[in-house]
Amino acid sequence: MQQLTIVKVGGKVVETPESLQQLLADFVALPGLKILVHGGGRSATKVAEQLGIETKMVEGRRITDMETLKVVTMVYAGLVNKNIVASLQAKGANAIGLTGADLNLIKAIKRPVKNIDYGYVGDVESVQVGELMELLNKNVVPVVAPLTHDGLGNMLNTNADTMASALAVAFAKHYQVNLVYCFEKKGVLSDPENDDAVIQKLSHSLFKQYQQSGVIAEGMIPKLDNGFNALKSGVAKVIITNTEGLKSDGEAGTDLIW
Amino acid sequence: MQQLTIVKVGGKVVETPESLQQLLADFVALPGLKILVHGGGRSATKVAEQLGIETKMVEGRRITDMETLKVVTMVYAGLVNKNIVASLQAKGANAIGLTGADLNLIKAIKRPVKNIDYGYVGDVESVQVGELMELLNKNVVPVVAPLTHDGLGNMLNTNADTMASALAVAFAKHYQVNLVYCFEKKGVLSDPENDDAVIQKLSHSLFKQYQQSGVIAEGMIPKLDNGFNALKSGVAKVIITNTEGLKSDGEAGTDLIW
Repeated sequence: MQQLTIVKVGGKVVETPESLQQLLADFVALPGLKILVHGGGRSATKVAEQLGIETKMVEGRRITDMETLKVVTMVYAGLVNKNIVASLQAKGANAIGLTGADLNLIKAIKRPVKNIDYGYVGDVESVQVGELMELLNKNVVPVVAPLTHDGLGNMLNTNADTMASALAVAFAKHYQVNLVYCFEKKGVLSDPENDDAVIQKLSHSLFKQYQQSGVIAEGMIPKLDNGFNALKSGVAKVIITNTEGLKSDGEAGTDLIW
Repeated sequence: MQQLTIVKVGGKVVETPESLQQLLADFVALPGLKILVHGGGRSATKVAEQLGIETKMVEGRRITDMETLKVVTMVYAGLVNKNIVASLQAKGANAIGLTGADLNLIKAIKRPVKNIDYGYVGDVESVQVGELMELLNKNVVPVVAPLTHDGLGNMLNTNADTMASALAVAFAKHYQVNLVYCFEKKGVLSDPENDDAVIQKLSHSLFKQYQQSGVIAEGMIPKLDNGFNALKSGVAKVIITNTEGLKSDGEAGTDLIW
């Protein structure tokens, strides 16, 4: 099977011009087919602030009312996505920017209100990769913004880690998929105080132990849940690393094992 | 040759929720392959105002400094484009939103500074339709925002009428292309005071006469220049009409003839 690398990069990396250009150069240099999934939360918060819209976060997730939905649609699908696409084109990669609405790539349902009303936030329902595969096979490089649609005409705000995982699982039927989560640290740490204490192989049972003892906490937990879920569903390799690690051919960072 | 209809709709229609939904329903009902090119100027002006960015227009064209470029990228490629895509998906059309940067569809050069510095405004240089044809032939419906790129990593603001014309010319080698410019009036008027005085057939020489006598003026002139240019370059039919005229199978509005 052909290899497909799906790289998810967080907001901080893609929102700083210098680190973005370095990241994109490294990304373009990856062998084989590739997809980039990006965030953009910091820019969204900044634009919302400039527009006088208050940003409300609950457990790291953005409460997305109608006005905030407009902001994230503008920032993620417009500003961040198209600047990445234009930069990739300049680097010789035939990029195409997409949200979950384009080509009906990722359909979601508006998250049901339980204790918290997250607003226009989408939980992934289905992934449809047919047309995208045709493009991939012509060396087109999809750049995916963290937005889905509900099939009823509404865009929905969706976590980029989750979208990367959902895409990886859907493509695992057709390609040998490597999923790389790029973030600030070198990998998952066994000591939160020591940036070099990278866990090289993290099994699911070890993850659960670290989670119970509090070594792994907060934002890392949903990321790892997404990663292990992908691994369980046929994705060949899931790596958590920083942008430096992207160049190491899978040797740096934390490698998830089931 | 297969038929391809390219519809360009102005900002006012796509920025009013009710008229947008009606337009999209009529657009989806068109037979054959189709592409929608949209504006979004009114929303851009509104968002710019909310962000405290002054809008400067010269002869109907937006002066696009760096901050304004960010606004139009957010509004055209994000807010307006993705809402259209999501609405089309809800109506059963497999839409994909694009700018000129995506798939390297339309490359432009930053307009040289003569009397006026338009800023980050792009004049169309080349159109590359290869991958888009593959998608069209799979019944995908492209939705194109009025933005191009310079091949050096920068987005550029580009007139939607010009983009529609450039796409029509590029596709004319492969399809029988009908180009429809939708705007507020029923067609080109022989009497600016009488909305029913629609010129049914407008030849290029008649256009030049009306232009000299002042009957046709202002924003209509570049639109007609674009239209006649398309006709001269192999586009089968160019019609100027309102959204009602879109349903008439080419019988309403003004038909350009060379």
